[in-house]
Amino acid sequence: MNIDSLIIKPTLLLDEQKTLRNIERMIAKAQASGARFRPHFKTHQSAAIGEWFRQRGVEAITVSSVDMARYFADHGWQDITIAFPVNLRQLREINHLAAQIKLGLLVESLPVAEQLSSGVTRPVDVWLKIDVGYHRSGLDWHDYEGITAVARTITRAHNLNLVGLLTHAGHSYAARGSKEVLAVYETVFERLQAGQISLRDLGIKTAVSIGDTPTCSLTDTFEGVDEIRPGNFVFYDLMQAQIGACSLDDISVAVACPVVARHPERSQIVIYGGAIHFSKEQLRLANGAPCYGRLARLTSNGWQALSDASHISSLSQEHGIVQAEPYLLDRVQIGDYLLVLPVHSCLTANLHKRYLTLDGKWLDMMR
Amino acid sequence: MNIDSLIIKPTLLLDEQKTLRNIERMIAKAQASGARFRPHFKTHQSAAIGEWFRQRGVEAITVSSVDMARYFADHGWQDITIAFPVNLRQLREINHLAAQIKLGLLVESLPVAEQLSSGVTRPVDVWLKIDVGYHRSGLDWHDYEGITAVARTITRAHNLNLVGLLTHAGHSYAARGSKEVLAVYETVFERLQAGQISLRDLGIKTAVSIGDTPTCSLTDTFEGVDEIRPGNFVFYDLMQAQIGACSLDDISVAVACPVVARHPERSQIVIYGGAIHFSKEQLRLANGAPCYGRLARLTSNGWQALSDASHISSLSQEHGIVQAEPYLLDRVQIGDYLLVLPVHSCLTANLHKRYLTLDGKWLDMMR
Repeated sequence: MNIDSLIIKPTLLLDEQKTLRNIERMIAKAQASGARFRPHFKTHQSAAIGEWFRQRGVEAITVSSVDMARYFADHGWQDITIAFPVNLRQLREINHLAAQIKLGLLVESLPVAEQLSSGVTRPVDVWLKIDVGYHRSGLDWHDYEGITAVARTITRAHNLNLVGLLTHAGHSYAARGSKEVLAVYETVFERLQAGQISLRDLGIKTAVSIGDTPTCSLTDTFEGVDEIRPGNFVFYDLMQAQIGACSLDDISVAVACPVVARHPERSQIVIYGGAIHFSKEQLRLANGAPCYGRLARLTSNGWQALSDASHISSLSQEHGIVQAEPYLLDRVQIGDYLLVLPVHSCLTANLHKRYLTLDGKWLDMMR
Repeated sequence: MNIDSLIIKPTLLLDEQKTLRNIERMIAKAQASGARFRPHFKTHQSAAIGEWFRQRGVEAITVSSVDMARYFADHGWQDITIAFPVNLRQLREINHLAAQIKLGLLVESLPVAEQLSSGVTRPVDVWLKIDVGYHRSGLDWHDYEGITAVARTITRAHNLNLVGLLTHAGHSYAARGSKEVLAVYETVFERLQAGQISLRDLGIKTAVSIGDTPTCSLTDTFEGVDEIRPGNFVFYDLMQAQIGACSLDDISVAVACPVVARHPERSQIVIYGGAIHFSKEQLRLANGAPCYGRLARLTSNGWQALSDASHISSLSQEHGIVQAEPYLLDRVQIGDYLLVLPVHSCLTANLHKRYLTLDGKWLDMMR
């Protein structure tokens, strides 16, 4: 099927084959290590894409909000971890979910552990969120006293089932290349294990769960890890390619953007595709210039990234400016569309209402 | 009404009194100058807020997409300009709209003028988009030959009614303070007028339309300008305050964000409120630090901005990190919520589904 006629405005395209390849590769790696695969669904936010995981044996998932847990629970998922520090203002919604599915929560402080002890009306799994160096949230990995206090409060509570230590090593995003990312992985693993051992010495048995896409993509084995929760790997993006966690060819989403103006006098093409279609995440090219997206060309069976000499150099609300090489300027006409690989696929997908596969199927996502 | 119980997750709050004050001030200024007020509705994207304009006599509006024109046409607006270069891939939708309302389009090139000449099936108004120095899109203001060629193509076409020259002086966003912004305004006006005169000499009469919030806020009079199209002024934001186009007290939207963690050891509070609630627009504080939002405290009749010593220092998908002064760290508990003034209200509003007014009304917006 030719999808050209379906692209009338900025449209999030999905290469199903690349996406399935990304999914199957991560499943195989988790299986080889005996780690449970609990993929993070915040990247795609789509029940239809969730089915691709389910068809391949995945039964447990991660989400980033209570609303997202509700959406996937309503689509038949029975085992969901909300990988975000518990929001006490949503306790009622949390209890509703816990009555319906096996629900996992994240706790990182004593006050929250205490409030959950009295406020949760059905059994829930609880993970201690551990800060292994990213410093966004979590109990500091070497604060054994704090970890123990929270763990004890949870184990004493009637409806709280302490299952383990969980981290998101977001600082792996600052690493470049396999060696640096794997060094992060080693530290993360050691630090989680230290917590695990300190609790085991007190008679508290815990699993460990890790989550970020760079380390999950680049490590060969998850030995000693009970669970992995990567999310971005399903699509990857330019940021992951810059880190070295994927190749450009692994990126499985692109935004098709109509061309609305050409300005050869400044080597620019104006596209219909702006901050409300991509978000404003940027990366820096080798020459220091900001890049909000790179171009790709359609091939017979998908797309192929072009040189970053042509790239999105700025975004306003609806406009994108493509800094374009001469050959591209010559070939592109107003009324054509360009394919743009996103800098951050999670934020880009979040701004769209649905996906269009290369064979012309529309896949809905959470609203 | 106490809205506390309605805030269970990140919620876009709207101060109706401040919003009405912003609207009424701009209406009064346009009326005093005899300029038509055609506010840009891309900032609020809400039929309910649109009514506040209509009740004050506004009949003509600006939008940034065909979909937005459709939404407001379905809510009774009969005179709409789509202030974005025509997207030829939506010609069918444009013709549907033109059959129903008085529709204005933007043209900035000969190929588009020619395609519209043959493709538009009902009368539409056409504005020539002029680049007066921002260099995003438009015919260069001193390319009189180009402007004339496009103008002639339009005046010859059966269904195209050339109404004027339109610009968006986006470079006013780089100005700081009234003097710099007004200098931009002067140049913009002179450059549009030069185009107007050159066309008049050929017997083609045109109106001029300007649009950006900084110049519209800071100029005292729109003498010689036929139409103004500001949008952001309805809410303003931190970026406009930094430019000097508004005071902090004029900002009429804030995101209420639940507190989910506290980290006094690094002077941080973690809020539920991230890039999917604010976008990633940032500004720089005086010390060079990035700022993704500033805090405000609720007062008896609205809110008041706090010092920028406390501010949002980073955003990930759902998390926001507040760098907090000691007094704030002491007072804020997990389960409270904080009010965050946005850096860019257009992008922030676009990420929400509805507004909550301070007296507890929910106002829907376009999906």
